[in-house]
Amino acid sequence: MRVLILGAAGMIGRRLADRLVHDGLPGRGPVSALLLADVMQPVGPPDLIAEVRAVDIASPQAAADLIAWRPDVIFHLAAIVSGAAEADFTLGYDINVRATWSLLEALRLSGHPVRLVFSSSVAVFGAPVPDLVPDDFHLTPRSSYGAQKAICELLVSDYSRKGFVDGVSVRLPTIVVRPGAPNAAASGFLSGILREPLRGVAAILPVDPVSEVWVASPGIAVDSLLHAAGLSAQGVDGGRVINGRGISVSVAGMIAALRAIAGDAVADLVMLAPDPRISAIVGSWPKAFACDHARSLGFPVDTGIDAIIRAHISEELGGRIGGA
Amino acid sequence: MRVLILGAAGMIGRRLADRLVHDGLPGRGPVSALLLADVMQPVGPPDLIAEVRAVDIASPQAAADLIAWRPDVIFHLAAIVSGAAEADFTLGYDINVRATWSLLEALRLSGHPVRLVFSSSVAVFGAPVPDLVPDDFHLTPRSSYGAQKAICELLVSDYSRKGFVDGVSVRLPTIVVRPGAPNAAASGFLSGILREPLRGVAAILPVDPVSEVWVASPGIAVDSLLHAAGLSAQGVDGGRVINGRGISVSVAGMIAALRAIAGDAVADLVMLAPDPRISAIVGSWPKAFACDHARSLGFPVDTGIDAIIRAHISEELGGRIGGA
Repeated sequence: MRVLILGAAGMIGRRLADRLVHDGLPGRGPVSALLLADVMQPVGPPDLIAEVRAVDIASPQAAADLIAWRPDVIFHLAAIVSGAAEADFTLGYDINVRATWSLLEALRLSGHPVRLVFSSSVAVFGAPVPDLVPDDFHLTPRSSYGAQKAICELLVSDYSRKGFVDGVSVRLPTIVVRPGAPNAAASGFLSGILREPLRGVAAILPVDPVSEVWVASPGIAVDSLLHAAGLSAQGVDGGRVINGRGISVSVAGMIAALRAIAGDAVADLVMLAPDPRISAIVGSWPKAFACDHARSLGFPVDTGIDAIIRAHISEELGGRIGGA
Repeated sequence: MRVLILGAAGMIGRRLADRLVHDGLPGRGPVSALLLADVMQPVGPPDLIAEVRAVDIASPQAAADLIAWRPDVIFHLAAIVSGAAEADFTLGYDINVRATWSLLEALRLSGHPVRLVFSSSVAVFGAPVPDLVPDDFHLTPRSSYGAQKAICELLVSDYSRKGFVDGVSVRLPTIVVRPGAPNAAASGFLSGILREPLRGVAAILPVDPVSEVWVASPGIAVDSLLHAAGLSAQGVDGGRVINGRGISVSVAGMIAALRAIAGDAVADLVMLAPDPRISAIVGSWPKAFACDHARSLGFPVDTGIDAIIRAHISEELGGRIGGA
């Protein structure tokens, strides 16, 4: 099984590569070769089967070159993130739509309809949304990023319907706890209020603690992509766009779980500093999804915010709380 | 008011041009100049304000040339129709997506966010659909044409959100009675079973007469596009994609109305000859739409299938039934 990861240098891409090297592809067997591509040279897992490649997927020849490697399965995670796509309209469309479309065209012309797992986002939805968003809810994205993801879902589904690719789009929830440095995404604080206190650093909470959010752990996000890659033909028959499973939790609930696990000194490092701009963005996000389709297909889900926090402490902090 | 019609040679485009010349643009005043563009040289209405132009909108320069004419309002009706887009995948995407996107890009670069009325289609929906499709129902197109229209709706809305254009997408129902020769569209028989008998010619009915369909007259389709062009900023605030109003009618009801208006001899020219392929396609179409949004915005609607038939007899047959 030859597997290509596009966007392999990101947090999800790196975790996914590790899983593929160690565990293979669920339902599809071991991975014999892994091509890790990103605009930056990705850091591969320490294994001989992985090849790394720096690729500008906006270039006309890039997609054809990647498909010439003859992947059996492709994970397409490469994207300009929401804030950046909103700030640079042309760059967002070039990478998030034109490059994805070029990939689909290269697959069509190759004549090999391989399984393509496309990493989409709940940003395809826009306010007003019901408290529990059903699987058949309409798309009214309020960001270019969301519009771009929705356009690519339509392309992936139509190319699949025509037999040019065997695609599945998975709309991932907001990922917490993201490791690494804080980023500028509006959702960044949702990781920050857990990650920073756990290493002994104060974190800003810019929204009302009663705010409810829809989240998944990095581990479940990767498991969801792997599950999508393993779906049978019958599995994708009911629709190739899947609302990935998450959990609905209030920000207050996140902090309470942090307090229960790490103590008052850690939880008290979260500082409430309301930001109307971020509050408005977060307030427009769906709070929870029904995910009937994903559940019926056996997609994985986190057991709770406490398990997410414990996994972060174990995986990213070596079990230590409170910094070095 | 300078008005550009893209796809002006089609049935809707010709009617729209006539209306603009004679009645102006509702809520926006008289039309001082009209540019009629199509891949074929359109036939303009007999009026000095109209200029006609043959344009290949797939060419890179075409959109910029049209925008250089400085339209105040654009009606974009140009498309490869469903059957043709399904048969020629590349042509469908070139015209139905890439050319529309080029138009939006030319508008963005021009710096003039003019009102753009984009003619979309209920083909953005796919089975399974409820008996009454709500405005917030999701898009699962079962044709490349439907996927292409959905993609363009997303583009029009996102370019509008960013202020690059002031766009409205209207999803028109199946148009009956289409004048002219029969075409190869799966929906063609819905016009044929009225149009052909009314001129004394037999027509094939390929589906079960109990089939229910969602239709609008050519006149209401044009009125809907004109209404969309006249919507205020407040009017588009609730969403820039609008399910255009139609009426739900059974095929048996259509034939009964034909019989009541034109008599048994005419209605008996409809010959039942079931076609499983067409039955399957028609069976997958939505039967009715709630259209709450369009109703609240005052979009027009036909009063019934009998009025649609009478309008066709008056407008297209000079009041005469049964042929020359």
